[in-house]
Amino acid sequence: MKGLVEVYTGDGKGKTTVALGIAFRALGHGYKVYMIQFMKSVCSGECIQATKTKNFKIKSFGRASFVNKDNPDPLDIECAKEALNFAKEIVIEGRYDIVILDEINVALDFKLIDIASVIDLIKNKPDHVELIFTGRHAPQEIIDVADLASEIKEIKHPLSKGVSSRKGIEY
Amino acid sequence: MKGLVEVYTGDGKGKTTVALGIAFRALGHGYKVYMIQFMKSVCSGECIQATKTKNFKIKSFGRASFVNKDNPDPLDIECAKEALNFAKEIVIEGRYDIVILDEINVALDFKLIDIASVIDLIKNKPDHVELIFTGRHAPQEIIDVADLASEIKEIKHPLSKGVSSRKGIEY
Repeated sequence: MKGLVEVYTGDGKGKTTVALGIAFRALGHGYKVYMIQFMKSVCSGECIQATKTKNFKIKSFGRASFVNKDNPDPLDIECAKEALNFAKEIVIEGRYDIVILDEINVALDFKLIDIASVIDLIKNKPDHVELIFTGRHAPQEIIDVADLASEIKEIKHPLSKGVSSRKGIEY
Repeated sequence: MKGLVEVYTGDGKGKTTVALGIAFRALGHGYKVYMIQFMKSVCSGECIQATKTKNFKIKSFGRASFVNKDNPDPLDIECAKEALNFAKEIVIEGRYDIVILDEINVALDFKLIDIASVIDLIKNKPDHVELIFTGRHAPQEIIDVADLASEIKEIKHPLSKGVSSRKGIEY
């Protein structure tokens, strides 16, 4: 199977979640999946479940503190670069059929990592590896090289009505 | 935890997939999840994986043939009603924390089932049960009573470029 490049972006709920669903479905067919999370230090329900799931790994890179878009801390840049280097290793190695680069769109939008090196990663990926990009504000350059892109738009969200984030649903 | 009503609609790829991701994350926290599929006779990767996954069940109702929106076969109406009745049992019983009504939006749009009985199901659900609605063309009445709604819009899709549907990714 030829692996494509898929992008899930937009302001609505469901970008990381759709990637988890892709993983779940692919695991059923015996594929191996790696989710690499950019700008995340806490990974909750999905990480607990991944430890119980064969052929699915998740690794998070990031710090607990809020990343300042206008003036990111050097440590945040360091974490994002580390995530990208790790992603390159996993992708090039080719042992995982699907590699999810979770929130990488945001890391690109915040300029924590360089778009040229990500385009390079896409161009040099083994043919069978599927790459999934998630996060708001996917750069146009990524959408241009992607095979599939969906925008998840918020129609309504309970957090804007004062319902707090709920364990097992939002995280 | 108070269970909400979530809707995932739109023409883009990822509606059923996001529901699978919600299931995956929630399972990590020990919640029980039931996915009831309307208008589907074939369930592939996700069903294989569900059989390997504790606390997650999927049941499909539907026929292999294409449903004619303008003149649906009585058997299609029968299948959709059966799915809704089964959903009612599962929801009211309250043993499953999250009940996914996969493609129910389409069954409503095709008028295979009655919107009043679905609104009724939402109103009578146990407080802790989360309901997830997926499928294109979610009726406005469902969005109105939902707590959260996201629209998944297609930006680009490989099937329109002639790439055929791929096992483990699209199904």
